[in-house]
Amino acid sequence: MIQGHGDDAYRFARTIRANFSSNVYGRVDLEALKAHLKQSLDAISHYPEPEPYTLEAALAARHGIDPAAVCVTNGATEAIYLIAHAFSDSRSTILQPTFSEYADACQLYGHSILHYIQDNSRWRKAKQRVGFGLDGIFSVGQNETQSSGALVWLCNPNNPTGGVIPKEQLRSWIEAHPDIVFVIDQSYGFFTQAPLLTAAEATSYPNVLQLHSMTKRYAMPGLRLGYVTAAPQLLERVRAVRMPWSVNALAIEAGLFLCDHPETAPIDLPSLLAETQRLRAQLNALPGLTAEPTQTHFFLCRLATGRACDLKQWLAEKHGILIRDAANFESLDAGCFRIATQTPEENKLLVEAVRQYLEDIVL
Amino acid sequence: MIQGHGDDAYRFARTIRANFSSNVYGRVDLEALKAHLKQSLDAISHYPEPEPYTLEAALAARHGIDPAAVCVTNGATEAIYLIAHAFSDSRSTILQPTFSEYADACQLYGHSILHYIQDNSRWRKAKQRVGFGLDGIFSVGQNETQSSGALVWLCNPNNPTGGVIPKEQLRSWIEAHPDIVFVIDQSYGFFTQAPLLTAAEATSYPNVLQLHSMTKRYAMPGLRLGYVTAAPQLLERVRAVRMPWSVNALAIEAGLFLCDHPETAPIDLPSLLAETQRLRAQLNALPGLTAEPTQTHFFLCRLATGRACDLKQWLAEKHGILIRDAANFESLDAGCFRIATQTPEENKLLVEAVRQYLEDIVL
Repeated sequence: MIQGHGDDAYRFARTIRANFSSNVYGRVDLEALKAHLKQSLDAISHYPEPEPYTLEAALAARHGIDPAAVCVTNGATEAIYLIAHAFSDSRSTILQPTFSEYADACQLYGHSILHYIQDNSRWRKAKQRVGFGLDGIFSVGQNETQSSGALVWLCNPNNPTGGVIPKEQLRSWIEAHPDIVFVIDQSYGFFTQAPLLTAAEATSYPNVLQLHSMTKRYAMPGLRLGYVTAAPQLLERVRAVRMPWSVNALAIEAGLFLCDHPETAPIDLPSLLAETQRLRAQLNALPGLTAEPTQTHFFLCRLATGRACDLKQWLAEKHGILIRDAANFESLDAGCFRIATQTPEENKLLVEAVRQYLEDIVL
Repeated sequence: MIQGHGDDAYRFARTIRANFSSNVYGRVDLEALKAHLKQSLDAISHYPEPEPYTLEAALAARHGIDPAAVCVTNGATEAIYLIAHAFSDSRSTILQPTFSEYADACQLYGHSILHYIQDNSRWRKAKQRVGFGLDGIFSVGQNETQSSGALVWLCNPNNPTGGVIPKEQLRSWIEAHPDIVFVIDQSYGFFTQAPLLTAAEATSYPNVLQLHSMTKRYAMPGLRLGYVTAAPQLLERVRAVRMPWSVNALAIEAGLFLCDHPETAPIDLPSLLAETQRLRAQLNALPGLTAEPTQTHFFLCRLATGRACDLKQWLAEKHGILIRDAANFESLDAGCFRIATQTPEENKLLVEAVRQYLEDIVL
């Protein structure tokens, strides 16, 4: 596990008044869910289902797929580790920069790992300067006579960049490489208007494992609830390495409630994304800073000079503002940080504070 | 995972009015804990600590050991799987009959498994009739030049038998075999008056991993909360394979509350164990049934003729009584079932119903 995730307000003496450091969009009304959980606390006195079949059936109905195509997990994180386990000793290509747990899980289960980095519209191996073209990433799938398999891991929309790989591009990769298993983490799938593979579409392929996060959509990371959708035969490999009772009873209760009440915790996504574009444009207009394009509610920024960790420290101490230093993402450097959009008022505070830093401290 | 754990009342049309099938002693007052959780539901909105260091420190203080000697897990079940993972491809000896997850976890991680069965005071390999004497189980630790290690797994008090291996016997095994790692599952440790290794004693050995279950003591299996105590150097191997955020925020909240309020959910253990001995003696006095000795609140019974599954079905349908068919434990046969002691009134119902079954149905 890497050190230094977001949401680390506890590191600073000053109270944080605006927190841009977590990708979890927390401005949702969870009162109905919490009221239901208050009524459901007797669930702590009984074992949860050893494998959460009832919730799997409810999610399958919601997606219009076979219950055998859904595997509920202890957060999407357990899904990542189960997949790495099910495909132990495989060759894994990871599209970077991205969520560090894919590489951590693959390393734990003996995968040989190739990091590929997107450079404009081309992909190149980490530490190499030559672009391979989009299909270069699939060299991993060739010459695999003695291989135990090959996987490609990608996050869509991607953390930390907010980029989305076009749906038709994904389809053509998946269809051209039936020998490769594509692990597509759609944890942030709700938070984009770009077209994505639906669960029904993804399960129609024999070589796609799609990850979903109830945590992200409903801002309840404390409960730990995610799931994988995939063709039942492929998913069976993942189920085979699952331990019993890994998902706690209150997470299951919450999942069932949210399947029955999908209107819970509404989010005005068009407004959130429009505000994201406003914030990005304002930051990008500052001299000495690049704010990169995004298709979701968070995005990556790069300082032309100086370190993001210094900016983070200064923002926290001078302004009570928290950002995510992104230097510990594979392939990113010390100048990178990630911003998750907040309210217009908070966003204005951020822009003004960063402007002051760039003018007074860096220049 | 085996099919057929206890607590499967949902299989029967008739309402279960007395449930002897679960080892979790549920007659505890959890109102204070539930009230605290109601106050703490905002915890669902934040990630738990990636590794639950705060709770580990609190448990360490309670046991008087180093915080580095405590690893909190998603139920004791995660602890079992983490240990099997940390010692992948080892040779594991499992003292049977016992909780099936040890063998399942060892199999998942490529262990070669030897099942040993206690026969009076001697231990023999499963499917062999020759006793090896108590030290025979350690033949696994010899000739291990090319081995990746050797483990002995035992549950103390043991599920399903209720037996306790004497503390001095355990000490002598541990001290005589420093090359073997002893996994001692004390999930039911609260529920016996027999002397057990304390966490402080166990962590003084370099070759003992001790499992603890908050679930069992506080009857909250829905929350999933267990922990391992061990010498820090040994425990580090287990930590190294732990995924982040595996323990949910409400389980951590509950654990911290229970460390601060150890008086929560008091249990009159002497009365419970005395009632267990009364119940066992009454069942053992029935013709055609043996109720085996126990040092905790549950015990094993054996039918002289007939199958426990038939008795279970009959008790559920005729009397609304649920027992645990124990035929699926390694080394047990179709006549075996497990009883967890309930109230004197319920226990009387059980004895009378079993008497009726033996007199009217079997004879």
